[in-house]
Amino acid sequence: MSAHTVTRKNRFLAACAGEAVDTVPIWLMRQAGRYLPEYQATRRKAGDFLTLCTTPELAVEVTLQPVHRLGVDAAILFSDILLPLRAMGMPLTFTEEGPRLEPLTSEAAIDALRVLSSDELPEVLTTIRLLRRELTDVVPLIGFSGAPFTLLTYAVEGQTGKSFVRSKKLLYSQPALAHRLLGKISDSLIAHLEGQVKAGAQALQLFDSWIGVLSPEDYAVFGAPYVEKVLTALRPLGVPLIYFPLGGLSLLPQVGKLSADIISIDWRQSLSVAKQQLQSNQGLQGNLEPLLLLGPLAQLEARVKQVLASAPRRRYVFNLGHGLTPEIPPAHVEALVEMVHRLGQSVV
Amino acid sequence: MSAHTVTRKNRFLAACAGEAVDTVPIWLMRQAGRYLPEYQATRRKAGDFLTLCTTPELAVEVTLQPVHRLGVDAAILFSDILLPLRAMGMPLTFTEEGPRLEPLTSEAAIDALRVLSSDELPEVLTTIRLLRRELTDVVPLIGFSGAPFTLLTYAVEGQTGKSFVRSKKLLYSQPALAHRLLGKISDSLIAHLEGQVKAGAQALQLFDSWIGVLSPEDYAVFGAPYVEKVLTALRPLGVPLIYFPLGGLSLLPQVGKLSADIISIDWRQSLSVAKQQLQSNQGLQGNLEPLLLLGPLAQLEARVKQVLASAPRRRYVFNLGHGLTPEIPPAHVEALVEMVHRLGQSVV
Repeated sequence: MSAHTVTRKNRFLAACAGEAVDTVPIWLMRQAGRYLPEYQATRRKAGDFLTLCTTPELAVEVTLQPVHRLGVDAAILFSDILLPLRAMGMPLTFTEEGPRLEPLTSEAAIDALRVLSSDELPEVLTTIRLLRRELTDVVPLIGFSGAPFTLLTYAVEGQTGKSFVRSKKLLYSQPALAHRLLGKISDSLIAHLEGQVKAGAQALQLFDSWIGVLSPEDYAVFGAPYVEKVLTALRPLGVPLIYFPLGGLSLLPQVGKLSADIISIDWRQSLSVAKQQLQSNQGLQGNLEPLLLLGPLAQLEARVKQVLASAPRRRYVFNLGHGLTPEIPPAHVEALVEMVHRLGQSVV
Repeated sequence: MSAHTVTRKNRFLAACAGEAVDTVPIWLMRQAGRYLPEYQATRRKAGDFLTLCTTPELAVEVTLQPVHRLGVDAAILFSDILLPLRAMGMPLTFTEEGPRLEPLTSEAAIDALRVLSSDELPEVLTTIRLLRRELTDVVPLIGFSGAPFTLLTYAVEGQTGKSFVRSKKLLYSQPALAHRLLGKISDSLIAHLEGQVKAGAQALQLFDSWIGVLSPEDYAVFGAPYVEKVLTALRPLGVPLIYFPLGGLSLLPQVGKLSADIISIDWRQSLSVAKQQLQSNQGLQGNLEPLLLLGPLAQLEARVKQVLASAPRRRYVFNLGHGLTPEIPPAHVEALVEMVHRLGQSVV
């Protein structure tokens, strides 16, 4: 493909494939979210967060909102990383303080978890099918899941971890049981992500949101092998695989050995430094500090230029180093997309 | 000094000075804390946490408890990093969920903060004087404070930060005001730490507990210059200066340019990799994953050996990569100190 045939609808996938592009593609983590008034409206209509995630018409609506408003180059499925744990047998609720699960405390509870097949979570698969219809000739659709260790922390802590005492107690005191749990989670994620691709997802991102609490020694045992298992199983599906090891800077030498096509880098490390630790054929995604969107646009533009200057010329997707937060003004997010598309032309 | 004249009472300071030691010195972050039943008893006697910190007899008691029980090679003042903010004019309380301050939201509130002099916080200075009397010929006493950016986050968020939206909004939207606040905090810390040394503290540690939320670009502007200002001002006092940039792996190239004698490394990065980014004369402290203390002792010993193998031979102090937590069995902490002293003999 030559850069001349690239437009918004194929820019993201062309970049993932390492092909020439007309400008740098951009999408934003949590682009569908509380900073958007139209999201808030749909969220109110849904009543609660879980209903929003599991009602295809509503999940479609919020997935499409930022695509239309911002002009980003990819849509990402609106769902929640905890839905697979719920389908495996863990009742899930969302409170003001965040998600709540009955934490797994016994071997019996871990053994009782079901391993998912690819036709489960039908509401997610329906959302994907509906989205693909809406997105034809617009932009591609990214599916996603949490990564195995990150889901282990939610399953064991019963909520978003703080000190991760329960998770690490499991790893260090009952490693065989930890491996069994990671195995079941990994097999379920493989099935569910296969289901997402069969339903129409054109790329996949694995969010390893809590991997940054592991030392390199522990990542080698409890993190990387399961990420690799998932990636290897998904490889035959032929879609680009993106891995986001949030907070895992010291893990990058190991991340560089994984079968991911694109590594998403958080805002803590420059892309050029990160790149040195990865494989030469691994692409990069990232990594603007999202809260720069709270400040003036001239400063934002200067930092966007820095990010673009440190990015590789091929196989690169602009993104934030973390998700958008509710306090960020939508107009600044719109301006960011315009900046990346404008400034990106001279770096591809 | 030769290694033959080194015993427990001078091992820590000898290591900080880069002198030969008989074995690796060890102290532990939060060695005085909730995992110890004797601490819990004193805590109950105090009633609330702030009383414990600000009543010299009680603060002395909990400072000495781990020195006696564990046989560590240094005591660290029991205090709280927020006491200087309180003395600067911010009322402070401790709730079940953590510390609470009235967050600074206006320029006027920041301008109203007092800059401390070195004779303020008399309860802390009294604690230090009493401790030095008790610790003569036992072990040296480490004083400490938070680092400037970390204290800015508490002052602006009013509590332990989560997304740090308020802090970053200040940095990005009102940088001049952020610099004024950082300047006042830095000047207060310099005065208070001078006061600590005059009262008897024999080493100082700056805890930069939240610096890991800054990108390298922002650390260069809002972090490192203020840490360096504090370190440079304290240098004439002649005590070893330790800096702990928790979560700041990508900041190490800048940390390597600071005037700290010892850099404390968290558990996320091997000491040998960290060392490559620091000055050749900067010593290291760290960095065992503290939650390994929840697991079996044989596994703990294997990981202690790994830490020692990756540590430099001179100017090295064993510590955890983060603080002890309430769930850790005291017997395992005792075993850790024994292991480091035994295994440390063959690596110095």
